[in-house]
Amino acid sequence: MVPMTQPHTTTPSTSTPVTVLGLGDMGRSLARAFVAAGHPTTVWNRSPGKGEDVVALGAVRAASAEEAVRASGLVVVCLVDYDASDAVLEPLVGALEGRVLVNLTSDTPARSRQTAAWAAKHSLAYLDGAVMVPVDVVGSADALVFHSGDRAAYAAHEDTLKALGEPATYLGEDHGLAAAYDMAMLDFFYGAMGGLVHAFALARAEGIDGASLAPYLNTIAGILPPIAELTAVDVDTRTYANDGGNLAMMAASVEHILHTAKGHRLDVSQLAGLKSVTDRAIAEGHGASSWSSIIEVIAAGR
Amino acid sequence: MVPMTQPHTTTPSTSTPVTVLGLGDMGRSLARAFVAAGHPTTVWNRSPGKGEDVVALGAVRAASAEEAVRASGLVVVCLVDYDASDAVLEPLVGALEGRVLVNLTSDTPARSRQTAAWAAKHSLAYLDGAVMVPVDVVGSADALVFHSGDRAAYAAHEDTLKALGEPATYLGEDHGLAAAYDMAMLDFFYGAMGGLVHAFALARAEGIDGASLAPYLNTIAGILPPIAELTAVDVDTRTYANDGGNLAMMAASVEHILHTAKGHRLDVSQLAGLKSVTDRAIAEGHGASSWSSIIEVIAAGR
Ligand SMILES: NC(=O)c1ccc[n+]([C@@H]2O[C@H](COP(=O)([O-])OP(=O)(O)OC[C@H]3O[C@@H](n4cnc5c(N)ncnc54)[C@H](OP(=O)(O)O)[C@@H]3O)[C@@H](O)[C@H]2O)c1
Ligand SMILES: NC(=O)c1ccc[n+]([C@@H]2O[C@H](COP(=O)([O-])OP(=O)(O)OC[C@H]3O[C@@H](n4cnc5c(N)ncnc54)[C@H](OP(=O)(O)O)[C@@H]3O)[C@@H](O)[C@H]2O)c1
Repeated sequence: MVPMTQPHTTTPSTSTPVTVLGLGDMGRSLARAFVAAGHPTTVWNRSPGKGEDVVALGAVRAASAEEAVRASGLVVVCLVDYDASDAVLEPLVGALEGRVLVNLTSDTPARSRQTAAWAAKHSLAYLDGAVMVPVDVVGSADALVFHSGDRAAYAAHEDTLKALGEPATYLGEDHGLAAAYDMAMLDFFYGAMGGLVHAFALARAEGIDGASLAPYLNTIAGILPPIAELTAVDVDTRTYANDGGNLAMMAASVEHILHTAKGHRLDVSQLAGLKSVTDRAIAEGHGASSWSSIIEVIAAGR
Repeated sequence: MVPMTQPHTTTPSTSTPVTVLGLGDMGRSLARAFVAAGHPTTVWNRSPGKGEDVVALGAVRAASAEEAVRASGLVVVCLVDYDASDAVLEPLVGALEGRVLVNLTSDTPARSRQTAAWAAKHSLAYLDGAVMVPVDVVGSADALVFHSGDRAAYAAHEDTLKALGEPATYLGEDHGLAAAYDMAMLDFFYGAMGGLVHAFALARAEGIDGASLAPYLNTIAGILPPIAELTAVDVDTRTYANDGGNLAMMAASVEHILHTAKGHRLDVSQLAGLKSVTDRAIAEGHGASSWSSIIEVIAAGR
């Protein structure tokens, strides 16, 4: 399932002024999607000079964050983390009054709830969200964006927010929900991303270049969705019946990769961390169970 | 790309007797695929009693490994590792003479080359392979199986070996090649598999059950193939231009996951290992580069 990257190009029946605070890679991508969907878009970034591309497409650059906020009823912020977004938002309390604030910065659920408490204290309508796709997928039919928090605010702006991605999803009133799903999905993502680069390092050490390896990696990506479904059942029921591959056999494979990588003097920090988990799971008697039984070690005592 | 699992059901124009040594999860799956493709299939397993299912489908159980080998011109072995396959094969030298041996056991490239040297010493035709899909995908149009080693032996049996999967692939005469691709692909796979189970643990700690999380994980699996392609270019050229996401931002996400997981007292061995890599890459000045620049830390000095 390679994501499609066709942006929406039709102007919606109602166009809503939108402000985007932050013109990093993701902020620019969000602004592009709003502009492409026909929404009057005002932008601001801390450091000047960033985002000339979105201005060229029709976005209007505000002279200050406050001016940017006052231009629209819907204000989207996307910065590197919540230290950054809190720093930007704190002085904007007055300007934000009566508008809807959507924070698409990624951070922990605790930080989302903390910013939600700040917004509540100031009676601001607040949505906390997370963008689950890379910048070049934003604005397409496949671009998953989560939202949680103020239900009425979401309902009022759902159509506009769908400019970022058709599967815009409202998860519930707990402002931390979007971040919780974000963290869990990124946990899977970064496990894969660490393994991915390590795979290229190992291949290169074996004389195989990246271009030769890459096409075959699709096979691995392709088998993950059905495995994720089986794993969900295992962890929800806390039964780990071998469904075609047992932990002992799979741990042997982890050991083989580790041995090969060490032989090539590669850093093995991530793999060694994983092996410490499989070792303990086998020591606790899960060798004949499915791979997913390692959750009993990861979440021991819970 | 969810793998299809339709087995071949038509009898091929030529049916070739095949022996399968080892009736673990994968050995049974291989035997089923040969039987389904109409090849007379003889099977053997160290411990008795395993594989009644494949016998019921028409495979013939031999009384000993030697009897199994003597039944076919093509002998496939698939055990847990090369300690096991060497132990089984060593006493079979005489019986293997004049036949083609295909070792689909997964282990390191070094072990493959070692067994190839043993086969060469005894003038045995030897192919070393690797099955790159789960058992329920074996025998389907999507089932990738690698082979390396004796070119003539592969050519002679390619049609029969395609019963295991249409994309049967011969990688070259170095017997270690299949294992080298296997290790690299499994490196990606197990990074993802460790992250996957950790994701479910983190979600559960946040009150989200597996069934709620699983469907969204397809989004993550779906964005990996294009990222793998970009990564291949980065690592082959050793240039790591930010292509829409920079390492510093992504490392911040790793830190957020780690922080959230620690807050829930989850084991974080794999993630902490990865973070040690991103920390060093940023310390070495790669913060504004692409994620793939971590290869410079993983394969430092190479
Ligand atoms: N890029 C992706 O593929 C992607 C995908 C999904 C989610 N995300 C999430 O989207 C968010 C933004 O990512 P990005 O890729 O746009 O990161 P980025 O390119 O590194 O941009 C970071 C942004 O944060 C701003 N910033 C940092 N510290 C600040 C501060 N103290 N005050 C004001 N502004 C500050 C930067 O402003 P300056 O220009 O002034 O430094 C810049 O606009 C992150 O939470 C990330 O996890 C990104
Ligand atoms: N299952 C998968 O999804 C999968 C996918 C790709 C590749 N593979 C690879 O396929 C290979 C087999 O995996 P599997 O899933 O079939 O493992 P498994 O279910 O654990 O079976 C292991 C097999 O090895 C045999 N064995 C172990 N030690 C032995 C010894 N000293 N002498 C003789 N036989 C011995 C076992 O015989 P007993 O019954 O007598 O113990 C059994 O037949 C592994 O290298 C694995 O990496 C598996």
